[in-house]
Parts: sequence; structure tokens; C-alpha cells
Amino acid sequence: MPPKPLPGFRDFYPEQLAERAHIFDTWRRIVRRYAFQEYDGPPLEPLDLYTQKSGDEIVTQLYNFVDKGDRAVALRPEMTPTFARMVGARAQTLRKPVRWFSMPQLFRYERTQKGRLREHFQLNVDIVGESDVLADAELLSVAVEIMRAFGLTAHDVRARVSDRRLLNALLAHLAIEESRWTDVYAVLDKLERQPRELSEEKLIAAGLSVEVCSVILGFVGLDFETLRAQYGDSVLVAPEIARFAEYLSHAEALGIAEWIRFDLTIVRGLAYYTGIVFELFDATGEFRAICGGGRYDNLLASLGGTDLPALGFGLGDVVLGELLRARKLMPVMVASVDFWLAQSPDAPRYPAAMLEAATALRSSGASVEYGLRAQRMEKQFEAARKAGARHVVLVDVASDGRTTYRVRLSGHDEQHFDRMEALVQWASSTTEIAT
Amino acid sequence: MPPKPLPGFRDFYPEQLAERAHIFDTWRRIVRRYAFQEYDGPPLEPLDLYTQKSGDEIVTQLYNFVDKGDRAVALRPEMTPTFARMVGARAQTLRKPVRWFSMPQLFRYERTQKGRLREHFQLNVDIVGESDVLADAELLSVAVEIMRAFGLTAHDVRARVSDRRLLNALLAHLAIEESRWTDVYAVLDKLERQPRELSEEKLIAAGLSVEVCSVILGFVGLDFETLRAQYGDSVLVAPEIARFAEYLSHAEALGIAEWIRFDLTIVRGLAYYTGIVFELFDATGEFRAICGGGRYDNLLASLGGTDLPALGFGLGDVVLGELLRARKLMPVMVASVDFWLAQSPDAPRYPAAMLEAATALRSSGASVEYGLRAQRMEKQFEAARKAGARHVVLVDVASDGRTTYRVRLSGHDEQHFDRMEALVQWASSTTEIAT
Repeated sequence: MPPKPLPGFRDFYPEQLAERAHIFDTWRRIVRRYAFQEYDGPPLEPLDLYTQKSGDEIVTQLYNFVDKGDRAVALRPEMTPTFARMVGARAQTLRKPVRWFSMPQLFRYERTQKGRLREHFQLNVDIVGESDVLADAELLSVAVEIMRAFGLTAHDVRARVSDRRLLNALLAHLAIEESRWTDVYAVLDKLERQPRELSEEKLIAAGLSVEVCSVILGFVGLDFETLRAQYGDSVLVAPEIARFAEYLSHAEALGIAEWIRFDLTIVRGLAYYTGIVFELFDATGEFRAICGGGRYDNLLASLGGTDLPALGFGLGDVVLGELLRARKLMPVMVASVDFWLAQSPDAPRYPAAMLEAATALRSSGASVEYGLRAQRMEKQFEAARKAGARHVVLVDVASDGRTTYRVRLSGHDEQHFDRMEALVQWASSTTEIAT
Repeated sequence: MPPKPLPGFRDFYPEQLAERAHIFDTWRRIVRRYAFQEYDGPPLEPLDLYTQKSGDEIVTQLYNFVDKGDRAVALRPEMTPTFARMVGARAQTLRKPVRWFSMPQLFRYERTQKGRLREHFQLNVDIVGESDVLADAELLSVAVEIMRAFGLTAHDVRARVSDRRLLNALLAHLAIEESRWTDVYAVLDKLERQPRELSEEKLIAAGLSVEVCSVILGFVGLDFETLRAQYGDSVLVAPEIARFAEYLSHAEALGIAEWIRFDLTIVRGLAYYTGIVFELFDATGEFRAICGGGRYDNLLASLGGTDLPALGFGLGDVVLGELLRARKLMPVMVASVDFWLAQSPDAPRYPAAMLEAATALRSSGASVEYGLRAQRMEKQFEAARKAGARHVVLVDVASDGRTTYRVRLSGHDEQHFDRMEALVQWASSTTEIAT
């Protein structure tokens, strides 16, 4: 027996591949409506590309090795470094804003546990060269419209949105020293998942007063209108509130307002994001985050030598797939064949008459199958049934060589055609053609 | 500056990705007409999967390493072992014949030279469970119809076809010992690329008489009808000739006869193929083989424990792409945006009126872009032009809040709409919608 697939890696049998194709096709369809262009890079890259961004500690999570040319290389764990390199190399000539997307397979050597794979596919959508919050609203709109295209609603999925600049202004307003902000972020990030006492303890340890500490703990569930009422007069916070309000009003015009929950506990990568950040979660909280992203205005400069504002998100196929299956929104979709052709092996011109019809039907775009060996008609019909063929076409060749085509229609009489052209014309007008 | 991509690996900028997408889409479109179902496997597999099939010498050509769990692993250099494993694991329950295809990215650590990359994408099309030559004709038909779908003709591309069983029968008829066949194959394989004297020398060294040797050398350019006339009476060869003639008659009925050149020098993998084999070449001989495949009836048993006859081909994206570009058959196809929206930043309801129209047009399936920051109208029109937008829609909001939409049509008067619904309806009926 051959070795099994590696733990954490998936075989995609036609049933699983049909699900993957449904996800990929939906991603592409929606992202293209937003006029994003697809790109891709190598799945294997120099190891430096990743350590440059994430430090050496990332190596423990990578599939990295030394290749036969003595190069330290790694399977890509994320797309952003490749994206930054590609944009950086053509920063002068690319039309701005750059609106690109990609659907790479990514690899991480993680402990395999329930639902944790070592590979997944991830839609990456990025905008480079625009600092206006309208770009932030546009980006979230892409993610939300993708959810909608899968049949999910604002009842199923929430976009939890925060803003680094607003949060920083709040911390400044609360007179927390900038050197402590990272500690506060770390507490905020875990606020919903760890006991309140522990959060409090950590904030106190970071030098916050009990009073300020309780303000921070009050960020859980704080809605934007309440925040606006509380901090609208602060010189530091007011401009950030105004900008975030503008973002929300764009989101409203784009038709995604009902999906948004303001949530200051959404932190995401510490050294990475600089503005509005968001995560998409299922409303029941049953699954891990579906999607995450935000503005990372300084990253391209630090990675690629290109000082351009940028924002983007990543949306993986695994959690999304779990959610779609749980909500019964994943159609079972292995394409069935349009036409099964059958001809008696005893008839004249077997199988040529059938093959000619197959070629003609295929040229019109239909999918066609037939028995690849001489078999009794009953066997051929049985095969057609097992294949789930939409139509069965009996090719009849009379002893004088005249060929007719009988199409069996479910629940109807048969349809007869005297010429292959007539069959093909009928087929083109009748079938939903697989493209 | 970030590190460059590894040598032999490609970045796919939107222009290159559009070419790749053209290739992928055409592959899928044609293969589906033949009712093949798509599958995929992991790009990283246990090293054993490949050494089991190809021996330890394959390792010098692989991207192989030891992962963090101490497993010897390799990036997939070919798809067949994964295919054999997957079919083997479900051999009992899969409907036969299995008709599957895949489009994996494959990796080989080869010396990089002109046109030799270390990764490429390869369409794999396989049929499992059918020994009849009709399956062989069907398989070649898929490959040829793919060429046709790209705009290539029988003048551009030749399918060079041989038959291992016919060749074996010929060697047996010529009384060449079976132990020498491998040597003869090796000479045949190089017959067109090495001096005739060297071929002769090698055949003599393999123990062939001068007479038999000249028969073998005469296989170059030997057409099937001449062969049939010469060997039709041989008890050993006649059945194989009959079977091959049947194959050709199926190919004729499938409409691909004019593409086929009978060519006994097509050998392909020695330990692998058992029947009809073929390679697709451009007619000028300028490029390496475009596609190769054939029948490998014993391989699944040796790899997967599944004793089923099988046949398949691999068709890569690199040589095909070179050929299409050389024949000017590679369209330049980065999708341009359907609608560019513009609104005066001084008008009421900027940008909300424009965003609402964007969402409505996108919901109808159109691709839509607009300026992501407030800009003068001239700037907005310039951006539309640079983006190559098919239509520009001016969103006008009067001081009373009434919104109208003016669509600029190239070479025509403008078209006016008083309601967004009317605009969307017009858009749906007018534009070729990117799906």
C-alpha cells in the first residue's frame, strides 16, 4: 500500500473539490465585481522573506529547509510578504491604487488538532496607495459581499471592527504612557477569553491606575455611539471619532452597515496594523474567525522599500467551509454529465456513429460520456443511470446507413432527430451547458 | 529590499495570471466536455510515494526535506503517485471507468536553463478501469481538442503515436530476445536526435544482426499502412496491427485523424507504459513536447495495490504558453472594469450617492470602480481612462436631492437615467458581465 497523505494535508476527491471550486468561484466572482485583479507568487520562497517580517521565531511554524542549491527556503505561510515584494518591484509603474487579489495555498507546521490543518487556501484582497477611509469601507464591503454571495446573512455573520488610531487616541486621552500600549493591547486582545480579574491584574501590573483600568475593562461591549458621547469633546479623540464615523457612513452607503459591530477588543497583529481592523465571526461564536484584515500603512515600507499606505484581508477556506456546511449552504455539486450516448454494438457503424455524435455535441459545449467498450444496451443504460446523466441519446443506425437519434426525456416521450445537426441544435438550446 | 523569488519560480503579475487563467479555463472547459471530474491532492507528500515508483535516483531531482515531525517529505514532482493512492484508497466504490483530471503545480530541482523552470502547472487527465482501445482514442481526443480550443490546428501540432504492444510484437517477430528490448527502446527513443551510426553501433552492441539493425533504423518515418503491408501476415504482429487500426478508426470518428502521425520512435518512460503512447509536438519542432501520455496498465497495481488498467496524459503550461505566444494565440486579457463611477466631491450626498450606485451595479454582476478619495472630476475621468473602464457613469445629485445618472458611451451621446433601478437594468442588458 502506498503511504498515506501527511497529517494536516487534504486529498480533494471530486466531491471535496466541487466544494472547493464553489468557494473559489464565489470568491473570484465577487472580488472581480470590485475590479480587483488576480495575481499569484511562488509557493516556495526564500526563508528571509518571512523572517524579515516576523522575526526568527516564525521559523518554528514553517515548512522550511535548505534546497539543493544551499538556499534557505520555506513553503509560504502567508501571502503578504510575496505581495509586498511584487508590488515593491513595480511600485513606480503600477496604477494606484493597486487592487489585487490572490488565492494561494498556505502552509504552517502547526500541531494538528480538530479543524487545524497544515495547509489551507486563503483569499487575499489588498489595496495599496490609498489612505482615505473610503478604501477601508470598500475593503470590508468585499468581505461582507462574499459572505452574502454564499447565502449568509447579517444574522449569521458579524464584522467586528476596531480602529487602532481611535484606540491609540483613547489611550493617550487616558494618559497611558505609549510604552504601555502594547501591554494594554495584549490585555484587550484576550479580554473576552480570560477572567476579568486576570485582565485587571495585568493592567495594574502595566502601571495603570484602578480607575483607568476599569475604563479599559469597560471597552467590552462599548458601542460607538456611547463612545462618541463619552469622548466626543476630547481634543485627542474627536478627530478619530469623526474619521471612524465617516467610515461607518460609507459602509452604510455600501449596504453593509447591519453587519458591523464596533468592538475595541479586536486587536489583531500587534506590530502590523495601523488603522481600522476587522474580523468576521459567525454570530453563534461556534467557529474561529472566518476572515481578518485591516490597514497596515507602514508594512510595505518596512518590507519592500515601498512607502505606500495599504490595507487588506485574508479569508481562508477551512473555517468558511465548516460554517457553510453547518448552515447547509454548501451545495453538493459534482457536475453530472449532460448526455450519455448509447448504440447497439451489433448495429452498423458501431461505435463510429456514436463517436461522431459525441464530438458534435461536445463541440457545442455539452459534456458527453458513453461506454468505452462494446456492451449490451441494458448495460449502457445502467451506466448512464449510475453516472446521473441528464439525457440519454440512442444512436440508431439502420442497415441502409441512415442514422437517427432518440433522446429519452424524463417523464416525457422520446424526442427523435433525423440529422445530427438537428440533435446538436436541440441540445444547445436545451441543456445548461457546463463551461 | 526583499529577497528575489527563487530561480526557476515565477511571479504571476495580473498580466501573467490572465494568461495562466486563459490556459486553466480552456483546460477545464474542454476536459469537462468529456465528463472528467476534477480532483487534487497535497503539494507536499511523503518522499516514499515517489521513490516507490521511480527508485531512489529520483531524489536528486526533488525538493525533499525532513519536516519538523521527522518525516521525509517532498514537493510533488508529478501527480500520478498521488492519483494512484487516491484511486487505490477508494477502488471498490468508485464508478468505473474513473475519469478524473487535475491541474497541480509540480516541482523539480532541475538545472535552470532557457525555458526550464523548477515549477510548472500540469493538466493530468486519466482514465482507470478500461482496457479497450476506445479509451485510448478518447484520451487522445481530449488532448487534441484542447489544442483546437486554443486556436491551434493540425498544421501547428502533431500527435505522434506509437504502441508498445505493437512494437513488442515487431521485436518478437524480428526474433530479438526480450532481454534486449530495453536496449532497443533506448536507441529508438534517441533515433532522431543522435547520428545514425551511433544508433547502429548501440544496436549491434545489443546483439542485433546487421539486417535486423537496419529494420529497426527503418522505423523512422515508417507509416502505419506500410507497416501493415509489411507485417500484416505475421502471426505475432497481425493482432496488434488490427487493434491499432481499430484505434485509428475510432480517432477518425472522433474527428482527430488528421492530427495523428504514426511514429514508432515515440518511446516515453521505459518501465511505465504498456500500450499506446503519444506525444504532442508543434509541427516546426521548435519546442519541446507539449504533452505526453499513454496506457500504463500495470502501474496502479505496483503503486496502489489496485489492479486496474489505466491511461492518462500530462500537459504542462510552460511549453504550451511559449507556443501560444509564438503563434499569437495568447490573448492579452487583464479584465477591464465595466463601470467607473464619478461624482463631484462638492455635490450633496458625496460619496454616498455614488457608493449606492456602485453596490447596485455590483449586485447585478458588473465590475465597478471609483475614486477612493475626493478628487476633482477631471482627475476622476483620467483615472477611469487609465483603468480602461468600458463605461463612465456620472452621478449627479441636485440640491433637492434628486439623483440622475449619465453614462458616457464611446462615440455616442450620453444616456440619462432618472432612477438607479433604470441604470442597473440598462447595465444588465448592455454589459458583458465578468463572472
